[in-house]
Amino acid sequence: MTSFIQYDSKSDFSIHNIPFGVAVFNNEYIACCTRIGDMVVDLATLYDFGFLDNIEGLDDNLFEAYTLNLFIELGKPVTNAVRLRLQELFSENSSLSKDEKSIADCFFDLDQVQMMMPVHVPNYTDFYSSIEHATNVGAMFRDPENALLPNWKHIPVGYHGRASSIVISGVEIFRPKGQTKPVGADSPIFGPSQQLDFELEMGFIVNENTEMGDSISVEKAEDSIFGMVLFNDWSARDIQSWEYVPLGPFLGKNFGSSVSPWIVTLEALEPFRTSSPKQEPEVLDYLKFNGDKNFDINLEVYLKPENGDENLISESNFKYMYWNMAQQLAHHTVNGCNVEVGDLYASGTISGKDKSSYGSMLELTWRGTNPLTLNDGSERKFINDNDTITMKGWAEKDGIRVGFGEVSGKILPAK
Amino acid sequence: MTSFIQYDSKSDFSIHNIPFGVAVFNNEYIACCTRIGDMVVDLATLYDFGFLDNIEGLDDNLFEAYTLNLFIELGKPVTNAVRLRLQELFSENSSLSKDEKSIADCFFDLDQVQMMMPVHVPNYTDFYSSIEHATNVGAMFRDPENALLPNWKHIPVGYHGRASSIVISGVEIFRPKGQTKPVGADSPIFGPSQQLDFELEMGFIVNENTEMGDSISVEKAEDSIFGMVLFNDWSARDIQSWEYVPLGPFLGKNFGSSVSPWIVTLEALEPFRTSSPKQEPEVLDYLKFNGDKNFDINLEVYLKPENGDENLISESNFKYMYWNMAQQLAHHTVNGCNVEVGDLYASGTISGKDKSSYGSMLELTWRGTNPLTLNDGSERKFINDNDTITMKGWAEKDGIRVGFGEVSGKILPAK
Repeated sequence: MTSFIQYDSKSDFSIHNIPFGVAVFNNEYIACCTRIGDMVVDLATLYDFGFLDNIEGLDDNLFEAYTLNLFIELGKPVTNAVRLRLQELFSENSSLSKDEKSIADCFFDLDQVQMMMPVHVPNYTDFYSSIEHATNVGAMFRDPENALLPNWKHIPVGYHGRASSIVISGVEIFRPKGQTKPVGADSPIFGPSQQLDFELEMGFIVNENTEMGDSISVEKAEDSIFGMVLFNDWSARDIQSWEYVPLGPFLGKNFGSSVSPWIVTLEALEPFRTSSPKQEPEVLDYLKFNGDKNFDINLEVYLKPENGDENLISESNFKYMYWNMAQQLAHHTVNGCNVEVGDLYASGTISGKDKSSYGSMLELTWRGTNPLTLNDGSERKFINDNDTITMKGWAEKDGIRVGFGEVSGKILPAK
Repeated sequence: MTSFIQYDSKSDFSIHNIPFGVAVFNNEYIACCTRIGDMVVDLATLYDFGFLDNIEGLDDNLFEAYTLNLFIELGKPVTNAVRLRLQELFSENSSLSKDEKSIADCFFDLDQVQMMMPVHVPNYTDFYSSIEHATNVGAMFRDPENALLPNWKHIPVGYHGRASSIVISGVEIFRPKGQTKPVGADSPIFGPSQQLDFELEMGFIVNENTEMGDSISVEKAEDSIFGMVLFNDWSARDIQSWEYVPLGPFLGKNFGSSVSPWIVTLEALEPFRTSSPKQEPEVLDYLKFNGDKNFDINLEVYLKPENGDENLISESNFKYMYWNMAQQLAHHTVNGCNVEVGDLYASGTISGKDKSSYGSMLELTWRGTNPLTLNDGSERKFINDNDTITMKGWAEKDGIRVGFGEVSGKILPAK
C-alpha cells in the first residue's frame, strides 16, 4: 500500500495507521481528523464532499464535533469501515488523489492545526500491570523480599484516577503543592513537591456504554476497545507516599495527566501482536485468554531541560505488560461496573527488566539515590521546573510502521 | 414563614428548605424542579410564566434541562436569589398563591413525577472523614492498638470513586461478583460477594469550574458548594479487603452508589451549623478554619427485607465529622487539581461513638461477628439479596425542619 501523500519511511503516520483525533483548523473551526505523514485531514469536510458516503451506519456527519465520542460509539463495524475507506482514499490513484480542490480543502499542514483532546473522558482508571514496575516500587516503598503484594498476580490491580485533569500533549503542568512528611521529620510540612515524576504509560479508549450489572468477557473485550494513546501519569512521589495508605494515590496524581492527540486503532496495531509474559500461578477463569493479547510497541522517554537538548532517559516496550488490556477490561467490569464511551483505561507505568527500560524517575534514579546525568552535565533525581518530558511510541515490523507521535508536557513552577 | 401549600410539621420540605432536583413530569417531559411539602414544582414552567423574572444573572430558562449543572454554574448570587424568590412565591398571600391556573400547571403530586439524577457528576471523590469510622475499620482490618494511620489526623484522606455508577434513589443494585480470598484459603475464589454492605454518607455538589494549578482556600470553599445530598456508597467488603492494598478500593465500591434526589442548599442548612470535633494535633495552615463548619443533620438507616418491615439499624449525625467540607475541598485542590460543576464529594461513612450510630454493617456487626437481629427474627451479618437499605436525613431546630427525604436502594441477586 502506498499513498499519494509523500512521507518519510520513519513516519508514525503511514497509510497503515490512520489514527483519529480532533483539531482546530486555521484557528477557525474544530473537526475530527486523521493524519497521514505530516498532513492532517479534516474528516468533516471530507464527509461533506461525499468521500465517506455509503458506509453503513454512518448516517450523519459526526466529524463535525468537538470530540470523537459520537463517532467511536458507532462501534467497530462502522469505525473500521471508515478507516479502510480512508486508506483507500489516501492510496495512489484514488479518486481523491486526482481531486485537487478537495485535497486543498481537506488537507492541512501541521502548523495550520492545533490538536485538542480527542475524546471527552467520562471515567479514567489507572492499572498497575507491569510486573517490573510493581516489583521495583514494592522493593523501594515496602519490602524488597516481598516486593509483590499477595494479590498482584491474581488481579490486575487498578484504581480510579481523576478525569478532570487529563490534558492534551503540549499543555503545561504546574508543579503541585502539597503535604509531605520528609524522612525523619516529626510532622508533615507543606510546599511544592520535591519529587515530581512522570510515569510512562499507554491507555485504551472504550467504544461502548454498558449497563450496570453487566460484564465484558475477556474474549469480547477487544471489540470494546477503539484504540490506544500514549499517557503520562504525572506523579508527585513525596505527596503520594505520605497520603496513599490506605485508600490509594490521590493528590500525588490528580494534578494532571497528559495524553497524545492521536488515537491509534487496535486494527492498525494488529500486525504487532505478540505473546504475553506467562502468568503463574494460573489466573481465575474470568481472566483466562487465548491468543496474543500483547502488542510490541516501542516506547521512549526524553527529558529536555529549559534551553537544553533532549536526553533519552528510558527505552521500554508495551509488550512487557503482565496483564493485558482484555484482562483489565474484563476485571474492571466483572463486578457489574458500567463503562462509558470515551473511558480511558491506562496501563500503569511500563517498565522492562533492564534499568534503562524503567518507566519513571523513581525507578531510573532508584528514589533519587542514583541520579541521572544529562547531556549538559546537570543531574536529576526527579523532574525540575521547566523540564519537558516527551514520550514517543511506535510499532515497526516487515517495513510497516505505525506510531503514536508523542505526548509532551513541560513542568511549570508551582502557582 | 408559612406557605399557602399545606404540609405536615414533620415534612423535610418545609418552606425553609427549597431544594433543587430534576424530574420527569407525567411521563411527558423533564425539567428542573423544587419541592414544598408533598408538591413538586416545575421550575421551567414557573420561569415561562414569568415568576422568576428580574433575577440578575438568570437570563435563560436553564430549568428546561436534564440536569441542574447549568443552573448551579451560575453561582451563589443567582442560585440564592432564585431560592429566596421561590420562598416568597410559596408564602401565604403571594402573587402565585392566588393564581390557580399557574398552580395547576406548575405543581404536581408526588405520584405524577419520577425523580432523576439531579446533576451530571463529572468527578466523584470519596473522603474518609469520620474518626469513629476510620478507627473502627483500622481496628478490624489492621491493628486495634494503632487503628488510625499516621496521616489520618493530618490530611482529610480521600480517593477517587467511579462517577459512571452513581444512580438516583430507587434504582436497584445488582450484587457484585468478584474475586475474594476467604480467611484460611490458599488462593482466591470467584463468585457473588458474601459481604455486601452500605455506607451511610453525605455528599456535596460543587458549583464552579476551576483551572488546573488553582486552589480553593478553606475560607472560600463554602462559596463553591451548591448543596448536599444523602449518599450510600455500596461496598463489597470481601472484594475490597482482597484488592485494596496498595492502591485503594476499586471493584469493592464501583458497582454502584446511590444519591438522594434533592440537593439541599448550604443556605437552607445555615441554621444548623455547629462546632467541629477538636482537631489535635493542629492542622497545617491551609487546613485551618474559623467558625462553625459542621452541620447538625440527623441520619437514620433502615433495612427492609423482602416482604418485611423496616428495621431502624443506625442513628448517626453529620456533625460527628472530624474533617469538614471546607477542609476537604481545600485539600482536594491545594495541589492544583481542578474541580468541575456537578462534582460530587462524599464524606465517607458517618459513624458516631455509640455502636447504634455506626454507619455500615461492617461496624454494626463488627465484621459479622455480632449479627443484627431484625424484627422478623432473621439475622444479618451483611445485606441479603432483596433487602432494601433506606437512609434518611434531616435537621431540626427552633421549630424549623429542613430535610433530604431519603436515598433508597434494593439489592438484586448477582446477574
